[in-house]
Amino acid sequence: MASHHPIMTREELSEFLDREFPQIHMGGRTYFVEEVGPRTARMRMDYHERHIRPGGTISGPAMMALADLALYVTLLAHIGPVALAVTTSLNFNFLRKPEHRALISDCRLLKLGKRLAVGEVSIFSEGSPDMVCHATGTYSIPDRR
Amino acid sequence: MASHHPIMTREELSEFLDREFPQIHMGGRTYFVEEVGPRTARMRMDYHERHIRPGGTISGPAMMALADLALYVTLLAHIGPVALAVTTSLNFNFLRKPEHRALISDCRLLKLGKRLAVGEVSIFSEGSPDMVCHATGTYSIPDRR
Amino acid sequence: MASHHPIMTREELSEFLDREFPQIHMGGRTYFVEEVGPRTARMRMDYHERHIRPGGTISGPAMMALADLALYVTLLAHIGPVALAVTTSLNFNFLRKPEHRALISDCRLLKLGKRLAVGEVSIFSEGSPDMVCHATGTYSIPDRR
Amino acid sequence: MASHHPIMTREELSEFLDREFPQIHMGGRTYFVEEVGPRTARMRMDYHERHIRPGGTISGPAMMALADLALYVTLLAHIGPVALAVTTSLNFNFLRKPEHRALISDCRLLKLGKRLAVGEVSIFSEGSPDMVCHATGTYSIPDRR
Repeated sequence: MASHHPIMTREELSEFLDREFPQIHMGGRTYFVEEVGPRTARMRMDYHERHIRPGGTISGPAMMALADLALYVTLLAHIGPVALAVTTSLNFNFLRKPEHRALISDCRLLKLGKRLAVGEVSIFSEGSPDMVCHATGTYSIPDRR
Repeated sequence: MASHHPIMTREELSEFLDREFPQIHMGGRTYFVEEVGPRTARMRMDYHERHIRPGGTISGPAMMALADLALYVTLLAHIGPVALAVTTSLNFNFLRKPEHRALISDCRLLKLGKRLAVGEVSIFSEGSPDMVCHATGTYSIPDRR
Repeated sequence: MASHHPIMTREELSEFLDREFPQIHMGGRTYFVEEVGPRTARMRMDYHERHIRPGGTISGPAMMALADLALYVTLLAHIGPVALAVTTSLNFNFLRKPEHRALISDCRLLKLGKRLAVGEVSIFSEGSPDMVCHATGTYSIPDRR
Repeated sequence: MASHHPIMTREELSEFLDREFPQIHMGGRTYFVEEVGPRTARMRMDYHERHIRPGGTISGPAMMALADLALYVTLLAHIGPVALAVTTSLNFNFLRKPEHRALISDCRLLKLGKRLAVGEVSIFSEGSPDMVCHATGTYSIPDRR
């Protein structure tokens, strides 16, 4: 791995998202960067009507969007905000119905190469130990000069 | 395969979605069932600001939501509206940047078992022959009595 | 989860594999159950010519066979030897070239439902901290009476 | 796509495999390149004791090895034998028990970029229309000078 340690702070990541991806906050701010660490980052997605299905269940697409964002944020934290990384593949296993609560995503980079990064994301209902969704994803990293 | 032929029409599927999943139309109707056939269904997602990123690109999560819906609709078309199928896994390969146009999804069931269904979805920009995203997914089908 | 604790020991699992899957030992015994724990099992695959490519690299298919076996053994450890579980999907990310050494696989069940089990497998070259391959897999569990 | 048309013939591909990967023929020749076409290639894996489980079923790992080889051969057919492509991810859905017969794999490239290629593989029992396994895979292509 080029570097095991993040080079952006939680605050820098949040500002970057606000500036570059304002649309993720459309309809109210629900995504938060909670913590960054070596190869890892934790995010939180508030329980909000735009993520839920009738009956109160958080939708599959809402979990997929969270996982995609979590991987992107964790990657940026380790390569910096200049890079334009592109998702090339994502794999999801849906394990349980989430609770009617916020979701927490724990992302960990399994590989951070020059051209390719691979990470996994574990998603939990806040305060619960049982994983509701597991994802792995691959990002293509453009040439840096 | 239990049956190769759909048992719901395009109109019945559209009405079912309107009734059971009104939230997919929130902010304006963008998803349409275009065609159903043996083991297949085609959907269309209009190009709409809520699916796009700054710069006009359709977001990865918007394509993932379309693929998930396309699989669900194709499955329902073949087992009927009573069943409560649950997505258990989804896999995506993102191939090209979509055009600034509507997306068309072609879904095909690879297996329709008693307990498990598997399908693949090919997504294209309308009018273009190059696939922008390919997905495969697995659905768990509850016991029917 | 039905049970977090294994109901078969390492010895019972090894005997079961020897009896039911003698073909995995064809050409010499290379697979070993090393450890079982709550929701987990560790296996070892010896470095052996039938797993390697010219140049000494362990082949992708050899790692895939190890992951599939690791998931199967971990599942059996928790549901017992009677069940006839069937792999329904597997996803692999190949992260680094393995060393010219034995491989260690750490498997963990993410879900152990009545009909479906999901697990992840992390594969390492023995003695090295860097993961060489990550897998997730789904097993269908037949009805038990 | 750089090129839709293969630049290697079936014979050239077979000779390349024999020379560079003799180990796939260990224990008897069972893999054959049957046909190459625009973005596609078809392979055949003979029904042979080293691919089967007790009871006569072709093992999951044997199907995974065939899919990996099919993707590699199809890629080589389109970029030529000089390139050293590396599998980065593979996803499998196992659909039905294969028959006690040879397997046929139909591979199609979904993307052939400068750095990344993506393909899908459909595997059938010879003479049967029902797919037994579906795979998608990603290959990283090294810089060519």
